[in-house]
Amino acid sequence: MGVPTESAGSLTDLFAPRRVAVVGATDREGSVGRAIVENLAPFGGEVVGVNPSRESVLGVDCVDSLAEAGDPDVAVVAVPPDAAVEAVRTAGEVGIGSVVVITAGFGETGSEGVARERDLREIAAEYELDLVGPNSLGVIGTGTGFNATFGPDAPLEGSISFLSQSGAFVTSVVDWARDRGLGFRNVVSLGNKAVLDEVDFVREFDEDPETDVIVGYLEGIDDGRGFIEAARACETPIVLVKSGRTDAGARAASSHTGAIAGSDRAYEAGLEQAGVLRAQTVQELFDAAETLAGQPLPEGDGVAVVTNAGGPGVMATDAVGDSRLSLSSFSEETTSRLREAMPDAASVHNPIDVIGDADVSRFRDALAAATADPNVGMATVIAAPTAVLSFDALAETILAIREETGVPIVACLMGGESARIASGALSEAGVPAHFDPARAIEGLDALDEYREIGSREYDDPMSFDVNRERAREVLDRATERGDNRIGVEATDLLDAYGIPTPEGAVVESPGEAERVARGVEGDVVMKIVSPDILHKSDIGGVRVGVADGEVADAYEDLVARARNYQSDATVLGVQVQELVDTEEGVETIVGMTRDPQFGPLLLFGLGGIFVEVLEDTAFRVGPVSEREAREMVGEIDAAPLLRGARGREPVDEAGIVEAIGRLSQFVTDFPEIVELDINPLVATPDGVCAIDLQLTVEP
Amino acid sequence: MGVPTESAGSLTDLFAPRRVAVVGATDREGSVGRAIVENLAPFGGEVVGVNPSRESVLGVDCVDSLAEAGDPDVAVVAVPPDAAVEAVRTAGEVGIGSVVVITAGFGETGSEGVARERDLREIAAEYELDLVGPNSLGVIGTGTGFNATFGPDAPLEGSISFLSQSGAFVTSVVDWARDRGLGFRNVVSLGNKAVLDEVDFVREFDEDPETDVIVGYLEGIDDGRGFIEAARACETPIVLVKSGRTDAGARAASSHTGAIAGSDRAYEAGLEQAGVLRAQTVQELFDAAETLAGQPLPEGDGVAVVTNAGGPGVMATDAVGDSRLSLSSFSEETTSRLREAMPDAASVHNPIDVIGDADVSRFRDALAAATADPNVGMATVIAAPTAVLSFDALAETILAIREETGVPIVACLMGGESARIASGALSEAGVPAHFDPARAIEGLDALDEYREIGSREYDDPMSFDVNRERAREVLDRATERGDNRIGVEATDLLDAYGIPTPEGAVVESPGEAERVARGVEGDVVMKIVSPDILHKSDIGGVRVGVADGEVADAYEDLVARARNYQSDATVLGVQVQELVDTEEGVETIVGMTRDPQFGPLLLFGLGGIFVEVLEDTAFRVGPVSEREAREMVGEIDAAPLLRGARGREPVDEAGIVEAIGRLSQFVTDFPEIVELDINPLVATPDGVCAIDLQLTVEP
Repeated sequence: MGVPTESAGSLTDLFAPRRVAVVGATDREGSVGRAIVENLAPFGGEVVGVNPSRESVLGVDCVDSLAEAGDPDVAVVAVPPDAAVEAVRTAGEVGIGSVVVITAGFGETGSEGVARERDLREIAAEYELDLVGPNSLGVIGTGTGFNATFGPDAPLEGSISFLSQSGAFVTSVVDWARDRGLGFRNVVSLGNKAVLDEVDFVREFDEDPETDVIVGYLEGIDDGRGFIEAARACETPIVLVKSGRTDAGARAASSHTGAIAGSDRAYEAGLEQAGVLRAQTVQELFDAAETLAGQPLPEGDGVAVVTNAGGPGVMATDAVGDSRLSLSSFSEETTSRLREAMPDAASVHNPIDVIGDADVSRFRDALAAATADPNVGMATVIAAPTAVLSFDALAETILAIREETGVPIVACLMGGESARIASGALSEAGVPAHFDPARAIEGLDALDEYREIGSREYDDPMSFDVNRERAREVLDRATERGDNRIGVEATDLLDAYGIPTPEGAVVESPGEAERVARGVEGDVVMKIVSPDILHKSDIGGVRVGVADGEVADAYEDLVARARNYQSDATVLGVQVQELVDTEEGVETIVGMTRDPQFGPLLLFGLGGIFVEVLEDTAFRVGPVSEREAREMVGEIDAAPLLRGARGREPVDEAGIVEAIGRLSQFVTDFPEIVELDINPLVATPDGVCAIDLQLTVEP
Repeated sequence: MGVPTESAGSLTDLFAPRRVAVVGATDREGSVGRAIVENLAPFGGEVVGVNPSRESVLGVDCVDSLAEAGDPDVAVVAVPPDAAVEAVRTAGEVGIGSVVVITAGFGETGSEGVARERDLREIAAEYELDLVGPNSLGVIGTGTGFNATFGPDAPLEGSISFLSQSGAFVTSVVDWARDRGLGFRNVVSLGNKAVLDEVDFVREFDEDPETDVIVGYLEGIDDGRGFIEAARACETPIVLVKSGRTDAGARAASSHTGAIAGSDRAYEAGLEQAGVLRAQTVQELFDAAETLAGQPLPEGDGVAVVTNAGGPGVMATDAVGDSRLSLSSFSEETTSRLREAMPDAASVHNPIDVIGDADVSRFRDALAAATADPNVGMATVIAAPTAVLSFDALAETILAIREETGVPIVACLMGGESARIASGALSEAGVPAHFDPARAIEGLDALDEYREIGSREYDDPMSFDVNRERAREVLDRATERGDNRIGVEATDLLDAYGIPTPEGAVVESPGEAERVARGVEGDVVMKIVSPDILHKSDIGGVRVGVADGEVADAYEDLVARARNYQSDATVLGVQVQELVDTEEGVETIVGMTRDPQFGPLLLFGLGGIFVEVLEDTAFRVGPVSEREAREMVGEIDAAPLLRGARGREPVDEAGIVEAIGRLSQFVTDFPEIVELDINPLVATPDGVCAIDLQLTVEP
C-alpha cells in the first residue's frame, strides 16, 4: 500500500501504459495473439498491432515492425521464439522501456531454449529493459482496464495485487475470484523470470497506493536475501504460497520449472524473517488476502463471537483456541449492556449467543456492545438460517457497524443460496464471509499476524569485534594444503571470532605441555596436531583426562604414535586443553548449511538425541539479529531445559545468543564455508564453551 | 451401510413411520407447531394433529388427545414443557413406541428443567420409549419425505446420515448442502439426549442399507466405552466433529449444553480407537463425508494427479506430501502409453501435465492410462480454464472413467461460474469437486484412512493370570485405614498383577534385613514401612545404596527415626530392595487417569524431561489390546531411544507392552483407582522393573 507519493512505481508502464504494441497481433481463431488483442478491447489507452501481413486486426491498426509502432510504453510479444528475441532487441533499439514476453520455448525447454533465454537477458541488460517473462501469461492493470494476457477473463477491480509463477494459476484465480466478487489491482504472470522477478514486483506493488495486499504464488525465489530485504521494506502485507514444500512437491516443481527447489527449511525461515505470511493452500492464501484487503488492522488480539447458534459458536471458539488469537473477556459494562438488550435465555458472555429467535436488531445490539468493549480487537458474526433472520439485512448491519466502529469483522453466514448471495455482497464490500467458522477465524488470525509483522523492528545483524584477517589466514592455510576440512585450526578460528573454547594451547615439547597443563584447572585433553593425520582417534592420537603428572609422558606417547602411523608425518605439536565437564552443562549444537537461494541457514538445538532423534531444531537465515538469535534459542521445545527446568540452575542463555551471533558473522564473512557445526557448544550457568568444530570449505 | 438385511433398524419408525401424530399442531404464524405441519406436507405417510381446540390445521385433521390419534408410529411433541411430559406419558400408555420431543425447557435450563428431564427419562424407561430430545430440532428421513423438524428447508435425498447435538447446525448444513447438491438419508437433532443418544443412532444408521456414511456433530459423548463399541461394530464410515477441543471451546460447550466436556485427550484417543474419522472443522467434516459417500474404497494409497497446469499440480503434490497418501510411480507400460497419447511437451510422469492446450480427449487418455496402472489407487483431475476445455465435458469424462474403472476420483475445477456449475454436477453424481487441490487430496486421504479402518481387527484387551483377590485385600486395607493413597503396598499390588518390581522384601528385624540384602545383587535401598509416616524421605526414612555390612545398622537407624518422628507410630518393618541402576536402562512412565466419559485413560512416555518438559506422550482408553499397547510405545517421538538409537542396545519393548497391558487390566478391575503412575518403569535390554508406584483411590 505504501505512502501515496507523486512518483509512481518504477514499473508503472507495465500496469498502466498509455500506448501498447502487440507483436503478433492476429485474428486467427484460438491464437494467443488474438486473445491478447481481444482482452485489450476495454483498455483506456492506445493499442497498435505489429503484423507485417495485416493492415488491421479486429479493429486495431497494424504496423510492419515495432520500430514503426509510434513510441509505445510497453511491447507485448507473442511471436515464435526467435522472432520474439528479435522483437525484444528492436524494442531496446527504439527505446521502448517495458516488454512482456508471452512466447514460450526458452529456459523451460531444452538447451537451445536456455541459450535463447540467455540472449534475451543480455539484450534486456544492454538496453535496461523491464522485461516480464518469457513464457508468461501476461500482465493486468485493472486501473486502466489494461489486460495484456491471453487468459479467458478479466478480473474485477480491487485492491489485491497478484504475482504468480504459474500462468494457469492466474487464469484459475481470476476466473474464480470473479464468481466470488473478489477484485484485483495488478496481476503479473512471472513466467521464467529472465529479468524481472518477485523482488521487483513486491517493490512495485508496494509503491502503488491502490494496492492493499500483495498475493503471490511462487515455486522458487532466486535471490533469497534480496527477497527478504524487499519484503521487510514493504509496507503492504504479503501473503504467499511457496509450493514444493514437501519432498514430492519439490520434485514436481523442479521438473515443472527446471529450477532447483532449494530447502523448504530455508524458505520457511526466510519467509518468516521477511515478514511474509506463508499460506499452505490456495484457500488459506485467498482467505488471508481477502481479510487483509478489506479490513483495518485490529487493536488487540481479542475476538468477540456473536452467534444465534450455540454449536457453531463452540466451533468458532475451538478455532480461536487453535489460533494465536484469544477469546475476549468482556468488561462489566459490556456484560450489563448485553444483559439489558438480550433475552434471559441468551448468553451475555463470549461467545454471545443471541439465540435462535434473534432478528437483525438483536444481532445489531450484541455486535455494537461487543465491538465497543476495550478488550475486543475484532469480531465474527455467525448466523444459522432462521425464520426471523434475513441474511441480507444482517449483511447490511455488519457493514454498518464495521463502518461505525473500525473494528475488523468477518462473517459466517451458515446457510445455502440466500447466505451465499449475502456473503457475496459482504465480500464485495470487503468483509469476508464463509460457511465454516474456522475459516473466518483463520482470516482474523492472518490479520493479527500482520498486525505483529507491521510493528516489527528489523534490527541489524549482530556484529562483534573479530579478527577476520587471522581467520582468513587459517582458512587459506587449509585451502593451500588442499584440505576442505578443518582440524586443529578449529580453535584458532573460534578464537578469531571470539567464541569461547577450552583453555589451552598447541605446544611443541613435553615441558611446554606440562606448563600449559598446570595453567588450567583439573585434568586435560591432549591431541596430536598433524596435517597428515585426519582421524586422530583411530591412531590413539587423542588422550582424554590426563592428570598433571602424566602430561610429559602423554606428549611423548602421542608423538610416537604419529610417527608409528606414518614415519614422515609432519607433527606440528600437541594440543593441550582443559577438560570441560559436559555433564555439568547442557550440550547444544550451533550449525550452518549454505542454501543456494538464501545463503547461510543457521541451526540451533540441544545436542545428542534432541537434534538427532527428536529433530527439535530452530532455523534462521543468517546473518541474524540479536532478536533472531534469541528466538532460535527460545523456540525449541527443549528450551525449558536451558531455563532451569527440573530444579537446575539456568544456563547462560545470553552466551549462547552471542555465540550464534559470532558464528553468523563468521559464516557471512566467509562464503566459502558451506557447512559448519559447533557440536557441542556446552552451556553452563557461567558461560559457553565450544568443544568441537567441524567445517567444510568449498574452494 | 451394513449388509442389507430384511430386518430394518430398530429405530426405523423414527425415520420412516407410516403414521405420525403432531402434538401441538397449529397454524399460528411463526410457531414451531406450524413449521412442523408444513414440513410434513410432502410426507408420503399419514399425519394427524393433536390440538383440542382445532378440527384441522393446514389441511391436517386434528384430534383432542394423543390417545385418539389412531395408533401412530411416532409422536412429535411441540407443546410447552409440562404438557410435553404429559404427552410423552400418554404416548407410553397408548403404546406409541417412538417420540420426538421438540419442546425446550428441560436439562438445558435451571433445576426445574433438570427435574422435568428426569421425569421424561423415567416415563421413557417405564414404557420403553424410543425418545429423541427434548430440545431437539426434530428428525428427517428423506426416503419417505418425512421431515418432522421446524427447520426452514428439507434436505435433498442422498446417502449421508447425520446426527447433531446442535439443532441450528442441522438447519445450517441442510440449507448449505441443498445449494451444493449434497443430499442426506436420515437426520437427527439429538437435543438433550435424555434417552436416545449418539450410540443408538450410530447403530441405527449402520443398519440402514441406504446410508453410505454417518456424519456427526457432537459436543460430548456420555458413554465413551459404549460409543467405542458401537463404532467398532459399525460397518459404515463415521466422520465426526467433536467440538470443545480446546480449553476455550470446552468452556463454551459446557456453558452451552450444561454438560462437562471431559478431556479432549480422552476423546482423541477414544475416537481413534473407535475407528472414527475425526474432523476438526465443518469443511473437513463434509469434504470427508462427501468423498466417502460417493466413492468406492481405493485399493492402494497411491494417487495419480492429472492436470493441465503445472503450478496446481505442484500444489496437489504438496498436499499428497502432507497426507498419508503417496504419489504413485507409474509402470513402464503406463509411461509408454502416456508418451504415445500425449504431445512431447507434456509430462508423462506423475503429476501428469497434459499442458494448457489439452482438450477433454487428452484428459480422458491421461486419466484412462493413469487409472489402469496397478500402482494407482485413486486419482485427482485438476483443470484450469482454457479456451479449448469444457468443464461440463470434463465432468462427464470423469464420471465415465470413474464408472468404468471403479477407481475413486476427486476433481479440482479451478475456475469461476462454469467450474462451479460443472462441480455441482460432479457432486450430485458422487464425485466431490473443489477449487483448492489441497481439499481434493484431503478428501482422498479420508478415503484411504477409512480403507485402513475398515480392515482393522479389533483384538480383545490383553489379559493375564493375576491375583485379583490379593490386590483387592491390599486396596481394602488402605481404604480401611482411611487412606486414599498407597504407600508400601505398591509392591504388593504390582506383584499381584505381575508387574516386575525390584527384588526384596519387608522385614521385621536387622537379621532378616541382612539375609534379604545378601540375597540380592549389589547395594540395597531401605525404606521404613509405617502407615503413620506418609513422607518417608522428609524424616530420613529412605536410605539408598546401603552396602552389605551396613544393613543391620541402617535397620536400627530407620526404626529410630520413625520413633523419633512419632513415638507411637506403628512400624510394620523395613523394606529392603535391590538398588536398580536407572542409568543403565531407559526410564519410562506408565500412568492412568480416569476420564468421566471414557474410563481409564492410559499414558505412556519416557521419564523425566520427556513427559514433563517435552510432553512427548501417547494415550489410549483402556482396557487396551496388545496392538494398542504396542502403538502407544511406538508413537512417542522418543521411541527410537527404546530401539537402540545412538548405538545403545534396544530395551525389552515387549516387556513394556506387557506392563502396560497388566496395568490396563489392573485399573479396569478396580474402578475406584482414579489416578495412577508407575514412574519410573525402568526398561533395560533384559526386562522392565517398576521402581515406584503412586495411586489415588476414590472410595
